[in-house]
Amino acid sequence: MTREISALVFDAYGTLFDVHSVAALAESLFPGKGTALSHAWRSKQLEYTWLKSLMGQYEDFNRVTAASLEWALQAQHVVAGDGAKEALIDEYRRLAMFPEVPAALARLSAARPLAILSNGEPSMLEAVVAHNGIRDHFRGGVLSVHDAGIFKPHPSVYRLAEEKLGVPAPLTGFVSSNGWDAAGAKAFGFHAFWINRANAPPERLGFPPDAILADLAELARLLG
Amino acid sequence: MTREISALVFDAYGTLFDVHSVAALAESLFPGKGTALSHAWRSKQLEYTWLKSLMGQYEDFNRVTAASLEWALQAQHVVAGDGAKEALIDEYRRLAMFPEVPAALARLSAARPLAILSNGEPSMLEAVVAHNGIRDHFRGGVLSVHDAGIFKPHPSVYRLAEEKLGVPAPLTGFVSSNGWDAAGAKAFGFHAFWINRANAPPERLGFPPDAILADLAELARLLG
Repeated sequence: MTREISALVFDAYGTLFDVHSVAALAESLFPGKGTALSHAWRSKQLEYTWLKSLMGQYEDFNRVTAASLEWALQAQHVVAGDGAKEALIDEYRRLAMFPEVPAALARLSAARPLAILSNGEPSMLEAVVAHNGIRDHFRGGVLSVHDAGIFKPHPSVYRLAEEKLGVPAPLTGFVSSNGWDAAGAKAFGFHAFWINRANAPPERLGFPPDAILADLAELARLLG
Repeated sequence: MTREISALVFDAYGTLFDVHSVAALAESLFPGKGTALSHAWRSKQLEYTWLKSLMGQYEDFNRVTAASLEWALQAQHVVAGDGAKEALIDEYRRLAMFPEVPAALARLSAARPLAILSNGEPSMLEAVVAHNGIRDHFRGGVLSVHDAGIFKPHPSVYRLAEEKLGVPAPLTGFVSSNGWDAAGAKAFGFHAFWINRANAPPERLGFPPDAILADLAELARLLG
């Protein structure tokens, strides 16, 4: 089955880019509270994408990221000025890649088109891709949920990638470190690869991934 | 404005019934791990309601509760037999009320119809209401999202209450301890009362509640 994968679509935050590298900046701004703040921020950020989608009140990921930061700062009893907040949000444009990512993308892109499909607002997404110098690997496109007006895991998001690539869903591999995102992609019809970076328990959402891998190097060895 | 409230709709879990009373049973089954397990379970349970709704893959709250328990047990490294799992899930039918609830409901129901609108599967919801002997207060009905086939905060859930009560949304008070549920109700058009039992930061979802109260006794004093 995996030999038939004709295109690969990657989640961005947490899969290609290390979201918790924000913690380093947070720690330097608020010593002793950086890790707790960045975890609270990230989980509230995801929660808001789901809630705003369900409420039918989509706002772009930049705004969701700012709103969830306000909540997390208050929850962690951290008082921050506008400069600190802007620096933290701006860090999303400069997230570090996980170390194995560039070599894996180079190998995987030789045989098939790659694309990104992300919750990110288009300009913040293009910025982090450019910052890491990996734009050329994605000849399938750098796609944002913004064009669907709703966040993952709504099926209309995954449909954006299907339409852009023109590859049947079962022949498209969807790659995410977020178990719930892999489940959403699988429910849509993609072949789902879950990159279980955190060694987390599998999600019980009724749509298990086709394969569970430790990182993108393992995916590159599997698909060549 | 609050004098014009013609009907009141209550969230159930966390608002009328104390979900973390499950922690006592969990602690007796798995000493030292009860609190962490019940918190992990509750947050995964909510996450699954949002994810399954967005995926267009509704399953009833009984199943979501069982699936999220499996995840939480594994995440907390707890091995549980079928008997223990069934006892934990069954506990949702016997949740304790918060102490001020019965007197507040008695006072509030004298002047206007009350209803419950809950994520709960109908039979588990009726069971916990009957267990606490408060069914007679809800002449507006005990309503489940099951009839909408999607969970909160999707607007079609709140519409169930509007249709059942026949009261215009702005004259209907929606009462929830969950800030995101109050925001969903406010976005729909209800007058939203957030019962901030946990002294949590306000949600930044763009739809702040009309009033923030500490408990239902305060609501009863406000509305008489």
